[in-house]
Amino acid sequence: MASVRIREAEEGDCGQILRLIRELAEYEKLSDQVQISEEALRADGFGEKPLYRCLVADLPPAPGDAQGPRVVGYGLYYFIYSTWKGRTVYLEDIYVTPEYRGQGIGSKIIRRVAQVALDQGCSQFRLAVLDWNQKAMALYKALGAQDLTEAEGWHAFTFDGEAMRKLAGK
Amino acid sequence: MASVRIREAEEGDCGQILRLIRELAEYEKLSDQVQISEEALRADGFGEKPLYRCLVADLPPAPGDAQGPRVVGYGLYYFIYSTWKGRTVYLEDIYVTPEYRGQGIGSKIIRRVAQVALDQGCSQFRLAVLDWNQKAMALYKALGAQDLTEAEGWHAFTFDGEAMRKLAGK
Repeated sequence: MASVRIREAEEGDCGQILRLIRELAEYEKLSDQVQISEEALRADGFGEKPLYRCLVADLPPAPGDAQGPRVVGYGLYYFIYSTWKGRTVYLEDIYVTPEYRGQGIGSKIIRRVAQVALDQGCSQFRLAVLDWNQKAMALYKALGAQDLTEAEGWHAFTFDGEAMRKLAGK
Repeated sequence: MASVRIREAEEGDCGQILRLIRELAEYEKLSDQVQISEEALRADGFGEKPLYRCLVADLPPAPGDAQGPRVVGYGLYYFIYSTWKGRTVYLEDIYVTPEYRGQGIGSKIIRRVAQVALDQGCSQFRLAVLDWNQKAMALYKALGAQDLTEAEGWHAFTFDGEAMRKLAGK
């Protein structure tokens, strides 16, 4: 099997990243929630003030393949701020397409994110995982992560658009 | 009781914000985790590229009080990025000091954050809460929030400094 390379995403990868975002949401059984477009991913990640950064795992094209490298995994992250620990990396999504799992690509992406976090002076890096995704949970724990929901009881809450408009009186 | 004003934090508020960050961490029974300093809050929130924004609830000084306005609550937030819904506000901390609770200050801060989120084109705003803090959970739900850990099973994970260094091979 051709060797997979981990590299920083370029704007031209956004179509393939969106394909994987949709695959991940389907895997998470929450695909009805995907509202993002390729245009938004391009504008939001590759404009003057990028809102996120992304690593991709890609395969070199086969000889004679005109399509170029195929993206088979990604890790999308950004910087957040902890009032306890300061600058922190948040890994919003990490995904490897099914036929390329079991080769350590996910772990390679996580290692690269940890390097970025350290290089940027972050004292931690965070992510979220669904409780039924035991395989992912086991991997993160094996790599040294702590489950803060289990250990401390953190619950994630969201106000959606309608709730926000009510709150804002709009 | 003097009326409380919600306003954007200024750099000179960082000492009082740090006092409240510590009060909140004590309330959350996690005060050993606070490593931030007033200097870091100043540099990280009020430099060229602010890592967070903050609202404060303050009281006008009493006549003859030389100390200036007293900050009795705060809401510290930043922008994150959802691969499903795009630009999103994340409310990292919200806190009102005990003697000023029950006056709707927390709700006022949340309404202001919702306004900011809408003004900035965000389709949602998120926060996290500890499962034993039923009062806060009830307030957020009453204001229209959804508990994503309860509804979908999200768990928060973190890699701390030592785990990151191992991952990065440093």
